[in-house]
Amino acid sequence: MGKIIRLAHGAGGKMMNDLIRDLFAPPLDNPYLRQMADSAVIQLETYNLKPGDQLALSTDSFTVRPLFFPGGDIGSLAVHGTVNDVAMSGARPLWLTVGFILEEGLEMEVLEQVVRSMAEAAHTAGVQVVTGDTKVVERGHGDGLYVNTAGVGIVPAGVTIGPQQIQRGDVVLLSGTIGDHGIAVLSQREGLAFETDLVSDSAPLNGLVESLLAAAPHTHCLRDPTRGGVAAALNELAEAAGVGIEIEETAVPVRPAVSAACEMLGFDPLTVANEGTLVAFVEPQEAEAALESLRRHPLGKNASRIGVVVEEHAGMVLVRTPIGGRRILDMPLGELLPRIC
Amino acid sequence: MGKIIRLAHGAGGKMMNDLIRDLFAPPLDNPYLRQMADSAVIQLETYNLKPGDQLALSTDSFTVRPLFFPGGDIGSLAVHGTVNDVAMSGARPLWLTVGFILEEGLEMEVLEQVVRSMAEAAHTAGVQVVTGDTKVVERGHGDGLYVNTAGVGIVPAGVTIGPQQIQRGDVVLLSGTIGDHGIAVLSQREGLAFETDLVSDSAPLNGLVESLLAAAPHTHCLRDPTRGGVAAALNELAEAAGVGIEIEETAVPVRPAVSAACEMLGFDPLTVANEGTLVAFVEPQEAEAALESLRRHPLGKNASRIGVVVEEHAGMVLVRTPIGGRRILDMPLGELLPRIC
Repeated sequence: MGKIIRLAHGAGGKMMNDLIRDLFAPPLDNPYLRQMADSAVIQLETYNLKPGDQLALSTDSFTVRPLFFPGGDIGSLAVHGTVNDVAMSGARPLWLTVGFILEEGLEMEVLEQVVRSMAEAAHTAGVQVVTGDTKVVERGHGDGLYVNTAGVGIVPAGVTIGPQQIQRGDVVLLSGTIGDHGIAVLSQREGLAFETDLVSDSAPLNGLVESLLAAAPHTHCLRDPTRGGVAAALNELAEAAGVGIEIEETAVPVRPAVSAACEMLGFDPLTVANEGTLVAFVEPQEAEAALESLRRHPLGKNASRIGVVVEEHAGMVLVRTPIGGRRILDMPLGELLPRIC
Repeated sequence: MGKIIRLAHGAGGKMMNDLIRDLFAPPLDNPYLRQMADSAVIQLETYNLKPGDQLALSTDSFTVRPLFFPGGDIGSLAVHGTVNDVAMSGARPLWLTVGFILEEGLEMEVLEQVVRSMAEAAHTAGVQVVTGDTKVVERGHGDGLYVNTAGVGIVPAGVTIGPQQIQRGDVVLLSGTIGDHGIAVLSQREGLAFETDLVSDSAPLNGLVESLLAAAPHTHCLRDPTRGGVAAALNELAEAAGVGIEIEETAVPVRPAVSAACEMLGFDPLTVANEGTLVAFVEPQEAEAALESLRRHPLGKNASRIGVVVEEHAGMVLVRTPIGGRRILDMPLGELLPRIC
């Protein structure tokens, strides 16, 4: 095997099989991956499915630039991103598929590092990479590597979490500080690099969700505010649920480094991406228990109660400003931060 | 919405939501996709799972060039490729996830055409696209569009199909002519374009597999010989199962147009990609019934018995040539045909 990726590594022959056997399989090893068939076959009986259990499916492609950033890389991010999307339906994420699109000339060492990081993240999150695929495109037709993950999890019978469950009076909780991921990645961009010791919040949220649901079993909706940040997540949910949302700007935790960078760049932290933070819509009578359960978890130390669901101004999100005014929090149009995940 | 894809279409804001609502959702519409949550939640009860039922998972990224070719395009191919990988475990494919990586500047009309084609292919194959993701990369960092699909299916209790089931004496069946996909795509490449009325065999094989398994319920292994062709598929299986395979060159159906192109280009048709053809390893006593069931199906009209599994030369594939000799059919190294799927 050479030191760089060649077109032949994606052509279905010996070089591809060697790559799978030598580079992908060892760190990701598990019995499903070892089947080495066109698809992984999973014995559902092992998982004690109960009547009424549901399946959660999700997918995300990752094109983050640069590939390595403070607090993570495209490998760990690709695991966390999909684990989190699956967890947001109240599911226990169990299995991932991984599809790489590699650019000819990519250093083998970079790929190795990404796969190792992916394996560690999967191990920590308690999920298995059960099957994968590799394609190689010619130099100039990619950007080192892109990766897609799809995830499958099991939603226990009786759990119904989603935008349609949101109700007037629901309390809106946020599990941590916002904007850390977006600003940490941006701080590494050519032409933009600035000094900060900020790290991405990229982390698997399934454990946090489990704690939250144990404390607040009637939780209505969960969302991880990635691209477009909290602003996009709340606007989507307000529209989908046909409700209004009001949040207190001062209640939203923002690290000083994120505030400073946002001021410099002209961003609203509420529109910056997160990869290890969630928004929860809980019933008022479970809100205190929910908040405490979040704060007890290492990933929820900075959790706070940021707002409430109202009947008025359906489909809109309003922010109460520190000086007592109210402003509309718009859905970001979208051009701020390309390639953030 | 403009006439081309812009970076903002992948940034998680309003432009992305408009793209999803106006372009992706209408042709692909189904109740799961309509949930518009971070993951699609599937009520397993609707599918009457039985004890012992298994889940099959598969993924494939598609980088085929050009995006449109005789007999298909990247959209239909992305559905067929993953449906087929899932079907090769004996599963009934049910749900797909789709992840697009779009290049800034892609014409919206091209994307529309690909999504429509994907929707038609999914409809024909009887699968639903339940969730998706879109990323946009800057001009010069992609090639129009790449797409990943992951697929989930249910393998009925008691069905165990895979490389490990292959046994000495198994009859090797091939469901159709070989090389049609690879040569049809190559015929469209700049600098290589040649006149042919050949079309790709790209098709969903789940119906064919269902017929086959009804006729030959003890089928040991199925594989769709895509990248690397029949040569790669048989070599992988011979190695995985620790058996030898012998095939009759004259029994392998090859269209004259494929033979002619392969001769011109110096290819062995056995190494050229297929996207709607399968290889089946069946028990000798079920071989005749299996072959008949394939031939009765529109996608198996040209099915033939091409070889047998032997104890000798474990891990190797031998070809009996028309003049009575034997040659080793090697695993292709891999550089022949980049970007064929």
